[in-house]
Amino acid sequence: MIIPTAYANLQEVSRILLGLNCGKPLERILLPEVASSLSTKYDFDLQAFYFCADEESLRQPRVVRVGLIQNSIALPTTTPINEQKKAIMHKVKSMIDAAGASGVNIICLQEAWMMPFAFCTREKRWCEFSEPIDGECTQFLQDLARKYSMVIVNPILERDVKHGEVLWNTAVIIGNNGNIIGIHRKNHIPRVGDFNESTYYMEGNTGHPVFETCYGKIAVNICYGRHHPLNWLAFGLNGAEIVFNPSATVGELSEPMWPIEARNAAIANSYFVGSINRVGTEAFPNPFTSGDGKPQHSDFGHFYGSSYFSSPDASCTPSLSRYRDGLLVSDMDLNLCRQLKDKWGFRMTARYELYADLLSRYLKPDFIPQVIEDPYLQKQRQ
Amino acid sequence: MIIPTAYANLQEVSRILLGLNCGKPLERILLPEVASSLSTKYDFDLQAFYFCADEESLRQPRVVRVGLIQNSIALPTTTPINEQKKAIMHKVKSMIDAAGASGVNIICLQEAWMMPFAFCTREKRWCEFSEPIDGECTQFLQDLARKYSMVIVNPILERDVKHGEVLWNTAVIIGNNGNIIGIHRKNHIPRVGDFNESTYYMEGNTGHPVFETCYGKIAVNICYGRHHPLNWLAFGLNGAEIVFNPSATVGELSEPMWPIEARNAAIANSYFVGSINRVGTEAFPNPFTSGDGKPQHSDFGHFYGSSYFSSPDASCTPSLSRYRDGLLVSDMDLNLCRQLKDKWGFRMTARYELYADLLSRYLKPDFIPQVIEDPYLQKQRQ
Repeated sequence: MIIPTAYANLQEVSRILLGLNCGKPLERILLPEVASSLSTKYDFDLQAFYFCADEESLRQPRVVRVGLIQNSIALPTTTPINEQKKAIMHKVKSMIDAAGASGVNIICLQEAWMMPFAFCTREKRWCEFSEPIDGECTQFLQDLARKYSMVIVNPILERDVKHGEVLWNTAVIIGNNGNIIGIHRKNHIPRVGDFNESTYYMEGNTGHPVFETCYGKIAVNICYGRHHPLNWLAFGLNGAEIVFNPSATVGELSEPMWPIEARNAAIANSYFVGSINRVGTEAFPNPFTSGDGKPQHSDFGHFYGSSYFSSPDASCTPSLSRYRDGLLVSDMDLNLCRQLKDKWGFRMTARYELYADLLSRYLKPDFIPQVIEDPYLQKQRQ
Repeated sequence: MIIPTAYANLQEVSRILLGLNCGKPLERILLPEVASSLSTKYDFDLQAFYFCADEESLRQPRVVRVGLIQNSIALPTTTPINEQKKAIMHKVKSMIDAAGASGVNIICLQEAWMMPFAFCTREKRWCEFSEPIDGECTQFLQDLARKYSMVIVNPILERDVKHGEVLWNTAVIIGNNGNIIGIHRKNHIPRVGDFNESTYYMEGNTGHPVFETCYGKIAVNICYGRHHPLNWLAFGLNGAEIVFNPSATVGELSEPMWPIEARNAAIANSYFVGSINRVGTEAFPNPFTSGDGKPQHSDFGHFYGSSYFSSPDASCTPSLSRYRDGLLVSDMDLNLCRQLKDKWGFRMTARYELYADLLSRYLKPDFIPQVIEDPYLQKQRQ
């Protein structure tokens, strides 16, 4: 089924008036009845699209079906922690079941999906949500990974039991046999507004790993890392074909950036990006201030969902709901990544040696920026 | 005058259906009658907007008025070269006069504005359009710079008379006293479709200079350099507050990328970006092929204009016409750049040491990407 003409018309109107363009319209794909029934029963948004690639002579198409899940929390934050967690697991299970019924090969959950995004409160009580890499949530997902032969990206609040029980913001990559392939820890930690997560965990120490799964090479750029083009670049240099960006971000702060940064990363690095943001407003028992001079309040603002996929050819899917839980599915032929590398030649023309040199010099305390001053300014100062 | 409600409505519809968002709506500014009269008389698009910033205690607002000019060529490419050039200068003058009458402080012209974008033909006859840095076009603009006390960014095809008469794709920065402050040569040269410019000139050797003018610190990222996040980054590290992207690009190739890359650069690097693209279809006397298996043809496709400004706060102006010559004016308080740096802390959290190290390793022939393979894949291969 082709996207309706209204969609194409809107694209054209938006281009003219807003200067925006979503690339070529994508075909929708039909998912099995089981999936739609689950989406009705559990009230979640369900959409599916198809990114195609050219045929090649020597490689078969490598079409993988990829899913993104966005969700609100399930119980008030005043409920006992284990009950909150169980309730979230329950609602996420319905969406993974729909993904499984749809033949999804790789799925990614949202950042710290097993808890409210409580870091705004700066209260250490929420550390109790943390788990070791092979904890309760991972085990829960390992069963589902085995059941559906699905690779699952599982972003948790990690308790590092082997290193002094410190916390990390971590994605655990679960293979389609239910095994843990490895982990990635969030590289860039925000200190902005209510996102002062450095109260809880530090910058990740796992580099920029790419995980070679049976469905393709994937990587995870967690949340605030999407603002850092170098972070995206590093996953590309290590060979990623799909990079997930599990996030938790609110409307007033980041919404105008949301449709830009992931698409740019997909274009610049010739890979697919799956962007996920949680939904809903989460209220906490004790009010807190936000460093903005406004009165104390008890919530973070609205997490605006809007999960979507971006392609290396600059096209993207429409986004999921701004308000409802959702499962977004896309078929993508991973051959497109190298096809775009060959077409545009960004890596070939990148002149990395210039930038390796610049960054090395920039790191030094006595770095002198390359500034050419208008001599008339110098005269005025004399 | 506030942007009409229809604009805000369209933004919301676009956000929901296309996942797009232009940030906060900008106020329009009224330009003098002289400017509108010139735009009517010479038939060019004329629009003007205002990017505001917060008040500070210690710094006065630093509002500069910045202009972008997009234009088609003026005569057929079969006309003698000096006539073609004179005719383009004549039409560009009307727009610079409108900018001058509007009090524009800094203006940037499009890439190789003084010629058709003839590089698709691979014929060396077009080398005759080139000029030394202080050639005819620069002198023409120096007069206008003095007349209007305007900084003018002048992107030309440069003939380097001191180094074997080779060509460069160069921006000459003219100070508001008519002096030449310096030059920047295009860093990244495309080899894609009809954009095989490496037939004519090589990668630039001027680094990433920032020009300190009396109105602010500016830099120039020429055309294809906009696809390279490291190129944008380098101008930011050297302290740019406004980066211009004078371009020449056609619809089928790059249009879905156009609204993304510059906005991302403005966000990631906390500076303003002015994006310029030429307009119209340019036909050449001898047909040529384009490496795509299609029949020979005599034009490059449609240059789609759509020049626009992006702000570090993720907002952007609507774009100029897709078909007509145009002058886009924006007032921008440059204090916004540091305000966004303080708010988001991207440089503080950038971990440049990781990337300096990665790029150094990547440059070596024996670079080993950081890949973690699912052990089940290894077993299958055994």
